Amino acid sequence: MNEQVAEAPRQIWSRPAIGIDVGGTKVAAGLVDVDGRVLRRARRPTPHRTRAPQVVEDTIAEAIEELRDHRQAIAVGIGAAGFIDASQSTVLFAPHLSWRHEPLRDAVRRRVGLPVLVDNDANAALWAEARFGAGRGHGNVVEVNLGTGIGGALLVGGQLYRGQFGVAGELGHVQVVPGGHRCECGNRGCWEQYASGNAVVREARELAHARSPLAYRMLELAGGEPDRITGPLVTQAATAGDPAARELLEDAGRWLGVGLANLAAVLDPGMFIVGGGVSEAGDLLLEPAREAFRRQLTGRGFRPEAEIVPARLGNDAGLVGAADLARDAARRFPRHRSRRRSTLRAARRLRR
Amino acid sequence: MNEQVAEAPRQIWSRPAIGIDVGGTKVAAGLVDVDGRVLRRARRPTPHRTRAPQVVEDTIAEAIEELRDHRQAIAVGIGAAGFIDASQSTVLFAPHLSWRHEPLRDAVRRRVGLPVLVDNDANAALWAEARFGAGRGHGNVVEVNLGTGIGGALLVGGQLYRGQFGVAGELGHVQVVPGGHRCECGNRGCWEQYASGNAVVREARELAHARSPLAYRMLELAGGEPDRITGPLVTQAATAGDPAARELLEDAGRWLGVGLANLAAVLDPGMFIVGGGVSEAGDLLLEPAREAFRRQLTGRGFRPEAEIVPARLGNDAGLVGAADLARDAARRFPRHRSRRRSTLRAARRLRR
Repeated sequence: MNEQVAEAPRQIWSRPAIGIDVGGTKVAAGLVDVDGRVLRRARRPTPHRTRAPQVVEDTIAEAIEELRDHRQAIAVGIGAAGFIDASQSTVLFAPHLSWRHEPLRDAVRRRVGLPVLVDNDANAALWAEARFGAGRGHGNVVEVNLGTGIGGALLVGGQLYRGQFGVAGELGHVQVVPGGHRCECGNRGCWEQYASGNAVVREARELAHARSPLAYRMLELAGGEPDRITGPLVTQAATAGDPAARELLEDAGRWLGVGLANLAAVLDPGMFIVGGGVSEAGDLLLEPAREAFRRQLTGRGFRPEAEIVPARLGNDAGLVGAADLARDAARRFPRHRSRRRSTLRAARRLRR
Repeated sequence: MNEQVAEAPRQIWSRPAIGIDVGGTKVAAGLVDVDGRVLRRARRPTPHRTRAPQVVEDTIAEAIEELRDHRQAIAVGIGAAGFIDASQSTVLFAPHLSWRHEPLRDAVRRRVGLPVLVDNDANAALWAEARFGAGRGHGNVVEVNLGTGIGGALLVGGQLYRGQFGVAGELGHVQVVPGGHRCECGNRGCWEQYASGNAVVREARELAHARSPLAYRMLELAGGEPDRITGPLVTQAATAGDPAARELLEDAGRWLGVGLANLAAVLDPGMFIVGGGVSEAGDLLLEPAREAFRRQLTGRGFRPEAEIVPARLGNDAGLVGAADLARDAARRFPRHRSRRRSTLRAARRLRR
């Protein structure tokens, strides 16, 4: 206990933090060092959204416990695919999860006895890219994460911009087609119904259900069952040269470019970072996006244009960023820190 | 000359500044004091966009000269309906004017011999509303100005956010209808084709050209000529109770609300300020907008909602804000200031 109190601040903050990325399909956890390296991992499927919120919280706690045995973490950061309130403690709403006004920070803190910070998963991913990845040295950046839906985050003057109520950057729910496809958020025509992984899969399955000969290769990969076509399967087929799979990625890419042009009209960032599972299709997705962006950008030819670049940290971005944000919060708020210290001391006593 | 050098800084900055609002149809100039009051005005029609850029600059200079005779102004701020570069000197592109990469700041400075600042007209208007009007005390605000087109501006953490290249806030050119009406920016389906003054006028004239009995009252006000229907005329007819004119404002209002919901998804501001000529229709426009916003906001019911309020400073906002921004810039950049002082001294010498 005494050596804990005597420890120099630098040593304290140089310890790893735990980052958790809670997505629509998986909970990924990692022990992350100060340079953004993932030292150890744990991964579990996200409980289905019809399950009680507590089941997700239990899953998060299990993943944390699994990591904690390895080393002494300093804090926990959770990046969740949902609307987080301005105090960064409560999930207001999560289109793909069961949380509604869920006090996630306290629920997890109670379970694991460490300081906990909650942020939107895309905010966490953008923070990681800005600190350690594609966005280093850039001040005004928009992150677009193409996964189950579309997550978004905004860096303004080098800082995350969370909006007045904490829920800025819900880019996937900008309407791009009036009366278009129904979205899980309850609206119609949301961008994520046209440019996300779910959008690609919906179109691929529809093609297969229509018994189009175009879908032959994808159907074959899916064992003949249209509903077993997944996003990674479409990317796999496209990478192998299947024309229909390429068309589907082109369609999604074009919608991506249109949406980025809309965001450039509003925000005029210097860079767009495209991450998430679908972005693994690389230029099969990004080239049509860049082309549509160039064709759609208002004032094109008379203004500098933002770069559109792939994320660099891949699936790790969310958990790396969440861990770094948690470390940062613990450093910035001494009260938070002292509570953490006494929690750490209490936890050590318990372990003896 | 000596009393000028000896003058205390407070006295210098308490002198009025000149603000100019350059819109698609008119150039409005004003001598503005430190509290945002307009002491004197000048107003001229904007030269048609087929005219040379210099003609607009001459018009601006004439208006400034008219005001300068009255009192000694400290600086000139120009709010222009166009894309301004990050150095706030050049108009990159103006959909409704003839400027393309036009060095407006220097062109006007040469003509009038005073320090000049150029900003987007909506930025100027939002700055005025944030300092003296509807946005006082609010940190995260989006301004939407419904005039010839839609101008937009963003206040982030109490400061104007201009983007990486100076052209953030071009809200009117977010696409809301794929393949929709052609816009002056060159694209199709831009928001301003559905919710601006031009949109209302286009629909009203179309109704009249179609010889619909619904258009009877508006046609009567326009002397029987569909193409003489204007925005103010539609507002006048709607205020007097004409059902067709009310429908047209409702349609524009609904599109306004849909667009604001899109912006709330991205930016999550605490307040939307709606200004510009069309906003003079008041609740005939804003009530349908608020209703559409509430119906369209993603995550509604699970998040705090931004207020939608009318601008308070009316047509003066642009010139008041431009003047205040120019005063602010002159105060913040001493080099700018000393150049201004010697310019003033030189100007005085010339006048003797």
